[in-house]
Amino acid sequence: MKTAYKPILAALLLLVPLFSQAQPQAGAGQRLTPQVMARLFPPGVVSPEYNADGSVTFRCQAADAASVVLDTQMLPAAQPMVRGEGGVWSLTVTPGKPDIYPYCFIVDGKRIADPNNPFIFPNENFKNSLADVRGPEPSVQDIRDVPHGKVSYRFYHSKTCGIDRVMTVYTPAGYDPAGSERLPVLYLIHGMTDTYETWFKVGRVNIILDNLIADGLARRMIVVMPYANPYPEMMRQGLADRYDSMDTDRVTREILDDVKPFIESNYKVRTSARDRAVAGFSLGGRQALACGLGNPKEFQWVCAMAPAIFGEEYRTNFSDGTYAPVASLNKSFRLVWLGTGTSDFLIGASRSLDAYLTENGVKHTFYTPDGGHTWMNCRDYLTHIAQLLFK
Amino acid sequence: MKTAYKPILAALLLLVPLFSQAQPQAGAGQRLTPQVMARLFPPGVVSPEYNADGSVTFRCQAADAASVVLDTQMLPAAQPMVRGEGGVWSLTVTPGKPDIYPYCFIVDGKRIADPNNPFIFPNENFKNSLADVRGPEPSVQDIRDVPHGKVSYRFYHSKTCGIDRVMTVYTPAGYDPAGSERLPVLYLIHGMTDTYETWFKVGRVNIILDNLIADGLARRMIVVMPYANPYPEMMRQGLADRYDSMDTDRVTREILDDVKPFIESNYKVRTSARDRAVAGFSLGGRQALACGLGNPKEFQWVCAMAPAIFGEEYRTNFSDGTYAPVASLNKSFRLVWLGTGTSDFLIGASRSLDAYLTENGVKHTFYTPDGGHTWMNCRDYLTHIAQLLFK
Repeated sequence: MKTAYKPILAALLLLVPLFSQAQPQAGAGQRLTPQVMARLFPPGVVSPEYNADGSVTFRCQAADAASVVLDTQMLPAAQPMVRGEGGVWSLTVTPGKPDIYPYCFIVDGKRIADPNNPFIFPNENFKNSLADVRGPEPSVQDIRDVPHGKVSYRFYHSKTCGIDRVMTVYTPAGYDPAGSERLPVLYLIHGMTDTYETWFKVGRVNIILDNLIADGLARRMIVVMPYANPYPEMMRQGLADRYDSMDTDRVTREILDDVKPFIESNYKVRTSARDRAVAGFSLGGRQALACGLGNPKEFQWVCAMAPAIFGEEYRTNFSDGTYAPVASLNKSFRLVWLGTGTSDFLIGASRSLDAYLTENGVKHTFYTPDGGHTWMNCRDYLTHIAQLLFK
Repeated sequence: MKTAYKPILAALLLLVPLFSQAQPQAGAGQRLTPQVMARLFPPGVVSPEYNADGSVTFRCQAADAASVVLDTQMLPAAQPMVRGEGGVWSLTVTPGKPDIYPYCFIVDGKRIADPNNPFIFPNENFKNSLADVRGPEPSVQDIRDVPHGKVSYRFYHSKTCGIDRVMTVYTPAGYDPAGSERLPVLYLIHGMTDTYETWFKVGRVNIILDNLIADGLARRMIVVMPYANPYPEMMRQGLADRYDSMDTDRVTREILDDVKPFIESNYKVRTSARDRAVAGFSLGGRQALACGLGNPKEFQWVCAMAPAIFGEEYRTNFSDGTYAPVASLNKSFRLVWLGTGTSDFLIGASRSLDAYLTENGVKHTFYTPDGGHTWMNCRDYLTHIAQLLFK
């Protein structure tokens, strides 16, 4: 409809009922008022809104609430929001530095994702939203005017788990399945309760790789993000009767017996251990160590980001076959990478593993930036390992 | 870690604090009990759980709540859940027929997505979860053992909107960008407040197309799902000061000037109007009519699913250049398809448009199944049009 006819359209809107699940029948005779328009096409409030001064305004429509609190990792503690006109609660905050921060609203004690923000933190057990606060200059995780790779959702049947599953796969710009270029592959595992979408949606794998590749800082590679936790879906379908979060063996089998064959038959990739890496965060870091250090013929690059390893269990793992013998690591692996934030609650076990590797003469990297057990740190770990892999 | 060493691992777990945002320091000396294990690795409750008899059990952990209600389109009205052990509320329901149903919990009056279900309904203004209830035989929207296409997230800069954007793209199994096969393209638009993810995650485009193509019922095609609403992101970044949900012209420009050129330079597609279709649901149906009927040199296949058209505005549209003249339609278009459920609140305007097209001798399809303004109907519309397009 041409712009000139908008008044006619507005009049016709009188005939339209509210879009709702209730599906009311069309009724006529209402006077067209801003209130009627707002009821017909409720736009929601703008949240988050990114202000020119680097601050962010969060808004939550909750006319009946007695209290609304903003809980976000950009603040040291949860902070009350302020009730304004029309029952819209708001709060403007400035993070210490630009980054992508998880947050939620606590409405009368109930944690909810921001209803007006489609950017959700993919997770099995909580629903947070994401605020993407950019600085004056784009960072490595901000989309820039460089060639963009893509992330594809691939559907496959897992023999290991007995269910149909999905993985996400990053391919760099210009990837050509019929070309002569064969790419190395990073298998990248999420943390506990995360999903196959978390490294994509929260970890920004594609944007970080696009930028590093465009700047000549990372080699072109394919990144495969499997779903390392089959139990919720198996239980949902009655195929498991308990949730075994420590079933690392199954995750390794899933990667080696289901995911890897799928990738190697569907993508133009290199298929030697020299060109295969495994990395993971938190519980995924534990899984990456088992999958990688336990299978030197499969992977020559192993990266553990704030791995969920406990006490000195690695001593057992190096002796019982869970990992290859510690004396063999320098010969078998091109990169053994460990990274954990200094305020991460898992830093103790990482320091202990680092010391053990050093004692045993294992060449390895131990990266200890500031920060805790967060996805802000995850993106930093990824940025580091992407510049080391396959070189 | 080998299975035999699990008791050792369990003992080491004593050293692990709760995984939480608070990042407590590791503390020792706790006795290992099921309660401690549950605190260390909280699995969440299983929800939804699909029972062998076709019923579904929903569960919501809300120990402090006074009331929890299940609101789902599989029931005629919201229904109270029952408080059980440990503050877990539950309800088992059997839908009238197997399908994928949106639902949410209303906890003390607050609508929340199911915290334990990662399958979210992508939307700008509400957060619903999805329950995927399967019947004894797989339906067209259930994953089957057929070759699977993929859905890719493509990042691009929109000149029309001045922002970086994302679209999703379905390519069928065996699509080969270097092969000799060129595919036709369906541009498929979501409804009001939906996003570029809704046709994928809720509409099951990829599964429906995989199945229809495998059964020889649909032609191989690429399906492009743009984000037809730039306003939330433009407002979030200060690039628009109001939300213009009726800016159909901008959506048409975005599709023709940004999305189409991206697709035609990045995919092996046919580039004549004969091989280009546009379809959409609700507000997207309105946009599909404007984009399609308004651009006969671009599209020869136009499908409107429960389009948000009002009264007899189409009379104006056919005369003011918004649509091509009604007398030209039979010559210009190979398919003019209109489909609206008989209990959809928009059925009146669809019936009116159908009558007008008939009066004017326009060959067209008017499909009126049971059902309302729902995504259960959307998948049915898609199943129908996919079998007609490009034949």
